[in-house]
Amino acid sequence: MARLLIANCFTDELAGDSARLPQAHLQTAAASSHLLLWFARDGDLIVLPVEPEPELLAYVTDMTGTDASTLRLLVPPPGTTGTELLTGERLGNPQFREELRKTLDGRPVDTVLTLTPDAAVASLARFLGAEQAVPGYGFVSQGGGTLVNSKAVFRAVAAGAGVPLPEGAVCTNRQDAEDAIMELLDAGHPVMLKRDYACGGLGNEILTPVPGVEPVGAGRILQLRDRAAVREYLADRWLWLTNDGHHPAVVERYFPDSRAIFVEFVIDDHGAVFSQQGEMLSAPVANAQVIPSPQLEAGPLAVLVTAGARLCESLRSLGYRGFFCADAIVTKDGDVRFTEYNGRITGSTHIYTIIGGQIVGPDYAKDRVLVEYCGWPVPSFAAAAERLAESGLAYDRETRTGVVIVKAYSHADGTIRYCAVAEDLAAAARIRDRVESLFA
Amino acid sequence: MARLLIANCFTDELAGDSARLPQAHLQTAAASSHLLLWFARDGDLIVLPVEPEPELLAYVTDMTGTDASTLRLLVPPPGTTGTELLTGERLGNPQFREELRKTLDGRPVDTVLTLTPDAAVASLARFLGAEQAVPGYGFVSQGGGTLVNSKAVFRAVAAGAGVPLPEGAVCTNRQDAEDAIMELLDAGHPVMLKRDYACGGLGNEILTPVPGVEPVGAGRILQLRDRAAVREYLADRWLWLTNDGHHPAVVERYFPDSRAIFVEFVIDDHGAVFSQQGEMLSAPVANAQVIPSPQLEAGPLAVLVTAGARLCESLRSLGYRGFFCADAIVTKDGDVRFTEYNGRITGSTHIYTIIGGQIVGPDYAKDRVLVEYCGWPVPSFAAAAERLAESGLAYDRETRTGVVIVKAYSHADGTIRYCAVAEDLAAAARIRDRVESLFA
Repeated sequence: MARLLIANCFTDELAGDSARLPQAHLQTAAASSHLLLWFARDGDLIVLPVEPEPELLAYVTDMTGTDASTLRLLVPPPGTTGTELLTGERLGNPQFREELRKTLDGRPVDTVLTLTPDAAVASLARFLGAEQAVPGYGFVSQGGGTLVNSKAVFRAVAAGAGVPLPEGAVCTNRQDAEDAIMELLDAGHPVMLKRDYACGGLGNEILTPVPGVEPVGAGRILQLRDRAAVREYLADRWLWLTNDGHHPAVVERYFPDSRAIFVEFVIDDHGAVFSQQGEMLSAPVANAQVIPSPQLEAGPLAVLVTAGARLCESLRSLGYRGFFCADAIVTKDGDVRFTEYNGRITGSTHIYTIIGGQIVGPDYAKDRVLVEYCGWPVPSFAAAAERLAESGLAYDRETRTGVVIVKAYSHADGTIRYCAVAEDLAAAARIRDRVESLFA
Repeated sequence: MARLLIANCFTDELAGDSARLPQAHLQTAAASSHLLLWFARDGDLIVLPVEPEPELLAYVTDMTGTDASTLRLLVPPPGTTGTELLTGERLGNPQFREELRKTLDGRPVDTVLTLTPDAAVASLARFLGAEQAVPGYGFVSQGGGTLVNSKAVFRAVAAGAGVPLPEGAVCTNRQDAEDAIMELLDAGHPVMLKRDYACGGLGNEILTPVPGVEPVGAGRILQLRDRAAVREYLADRWLWLTNDGHHPAVVERYFPDSRAIFVEFVIDDHGAVFSQQGEMLSAPVANAQVIPSPQLEAGPLAVLVTAGARLCESLRSLGYRGFFCADAIVTKDGDVRFTEYNGRITGSTHIYTIIGGQIVGPDYAKDRVLVEYCGWPVPSFAAAAERLAESGLAYDRETRTGVVIVKAYSHADGTIRYCAVAEDLAAAARIRDRVESLFA
């Protein structure tokens, strides 16, 4: 028996033509794909868009106790759109497929673990006779992955399940968007506009009828007074908002001073099991996450988990199986409104399952908090790991505190992400201050 | 209490920007919108994109026994894209909304009946405080109608529900489409390519590796020998197939010599109820339908109804409520494969519910067959109705046989559709021969 891990972050199935994506986005996707190394176990076959840095591979496997020498890493030949994504073309490359078949040497594949549910993975599994190893194979093979990662489909599914949503609309044309925006602005509410497939707030903009709104979870904020200004805004931004007309745009009431909470589940044939929750901190786009969210009250938490489970049940009945994350806001009045879902391994999953559950240990959410910080500028992965070790800041298995680097070095902006494991949020912030002075 | 009927055929929500649609398509949509008149009852308010011909209104209400003088027809002012569709802009027109409110004169709306589930209708219902009157209001208000009318989403939902499908794929990029087509052609199978939102086979083309395949349900057939030819075909047709990149394209094995069967249901809060089935006849695109399908064997029929009900259950769990039609083929070997679904009132619904169930009577499917023929060239609706009456071919309530005109006159091609009610298919064909000689 063999396990096949496929590091397909932000697939071309979701993105459409990957030649249209900005280079920085592609570089980030390539770096994110290496998250899957955290899930590697002895003997795994791992398909990656690019080879990981040897220091990253050594670091991660050392942390997880995996014998790196037993892993087989495979990188398909480049496709017409380069090396950053595991596109359908690359996963379909005959030379790669033969190499994979040879590497398997007759062993059946009993587990296929992917970052993103994607038809190209289903096609590869079919080639290997391993359909049964892909969770929700039928659904995924026919593009179901696009439905469980769409901000537009999310709103229909959530409304259909009676899950609380911010007021808003899913707009396939500019006139509808104008009307939906005006309905909110006229009521005095700021409006969040969202591209259908985008991550970390990078596809979001906020329009506000009044000054003084702080943008959280959006790249930009604009003050617009009337319909003429909205029309002008849409004339300028409609193609951007719809990815050149490929997807609908989401118009949604924006709640200032809200907390952004995510709840994660695993969906299987028998139901959905709650895994963990956490909080995204944005200034203005996502730059930290805290797992579990500190001082989340029992009332909102109960709504988050029960409504999140209802979303799971809808997707389960569609045929989806696997990791699931629902994002929500908790308003300053304590109301919960769901804002999107992601049917995939997210940038949180490895932190609580592997770093939390396996490395810090089963009690990680009781006596520790896991705080991931983004954007630490470092010369290289190796330099960061070395300096953390020298300074005594690296994670210590005795004290169950310290720093774990959680992601590959980002060539897009020369930074790294790390997780501070600490007794509480204040202690994590003290660790961050020390970490970020290491190269200052 | 009031019933509000909204004749929104092929909405802009589904079509995207209606300015991009061909004029003939828009004219057909306008004519099709008048199908909803068959459902009118005394006192109904009916919103239409264009006024029906007086002769059509008189004819339909005479057939259904509705008092036309009690109906209130409302046509919103034209939108920026004309008068053929009930776009969100037109349903949102403040002058129209005020007129509607005034016409209601304080009566609450307890029923909203639409051709297509559409967010613009939900918005109008919200304006009237009539959300509860819209079946599946939450789902529809957030664009759910696009999910239950998409050929791409259909394949994921059907595969997820374990409903039998032709081999194939949903392709968001050209490379994936090339690979999916080649996989089928290499296996010796013809391939059907489908645009996501299109009706009556007009968005379909067939590629075949061998000559002699008869195209049924497609506008065009091409013989392509190898990958280079497929690549050239896609270079030429990809933008057409994807509606200029707006939607994925469906690649599907084509089964020559199959029968095309549809099964219709109504989905409500408690479950799904099977309504009727029928057969589409195409030469090469849909030009007749027979309700019920003659000599459909019990084996395939059982699969059609049980698998159709599974599709209903998936959509019901998403929050959809209302009319539902699943299309399938029955291959010459008797295998059933589902090919698309439509969550709306179709071009069949009024034929079996109103003309069949109400006019011909409860036994319509036992001792009669309803055969709709398309494309009868006539000078006008009035001339057709008059000539049918004079010739003795018009439907006779005594004999429960004869001809019912089922649709508005098509200004796109100067034809009309009619339904022959007869003892059997052979008798219906004899009626057709006599009808189509009337203006010859």
